[in-house]
Amino acid sequence: MSEHAATIRRFWQTTEARDWEGLAEVLAPEMVYEMEQTRERVRGRAAFLRFFGEYPGDWHLTVRRVVADEEGGVSVLDFTVGDERLVGISFFTFGDDGLIHRIDDVWPEPYEPPADRVHLTERF
Amino acid sequence: MSEHAATIRRFWQTTEARDWEGLAEVLAPEMVYEMEQTRERVRGRAAFLRFFGEYPGDWHLTVRRVVADEEGGVSVLDFTVGDERLVGISFFTFGDDGLIHRIDDVWPEPYEPPADRVHLTERF
Repeated sequence: MSEHAATIRRFWQTTEARDWEGLAEVLAPEMVYEMEQTRERVRGRAAFLRFFGEYPGDWHLTVRRVVADEEGGVSVLDFTVGDERLVGISFFTFGDDGLIHRIDDVWPEPYEPPADRVHLTERF
Repeated sequence: MSEHAATIRRFWQTTEARDWEGLAEVLAPEMVYEMEQTRERVRGRAAFLRFFGEYPGDWHLTVRRVVADEEGGVSVLDFTVGDERLVGISFFTFGDDGLIHRIDDVWPEPYEPPADRVHLTERF
């Protein structure tokens, strides 16, 4: 496993454990967290830890996949809040210090496929 | 750039060029393409080439980001169909032959942020 992949796994391990001090250790102080779908942004490690720490509900996550290279990485999560099941995709950008400087989060939702391609696909 | 990252870029370069023969060269014959959000699946290279080849509209793509490691990779696209702008995220799984054996595609859509976190984020 690459160093960045290991840092991404530690990011989610500490988050699931609500170990906010451990999580802070992999974050750059000036980090930025963005959700392009909602156009929301959180600036700085302190604000980010508050955002995750106050996230409502009895949520749990498991890491489905991590891909990482020299510059950054991506994780795919299975995320549950009570009975609700979500998929979370996070893009991580690292600095030369090995810390996370930027996270771009995406939460794709189910939708109905267009009718004009039913002859080209099967459903599962 | 890693070999897998180069293959992913070639995948999108040939797709944008409608160079279906070039695209076929990076695909395993038994490849599988899935869209988890709509629970659609396309089995096999021939069916996949038909799916992309028949995709309606005057669509164009530019690659925003590629992350790849030994096992696979991820791309993020800015995709347009006429005036419509979409973001596409694709997870690629490679075989030992260096070909693409599986693609998992995600198309996240904009949504309104939950009201209970407006005090924790800014909008952009």
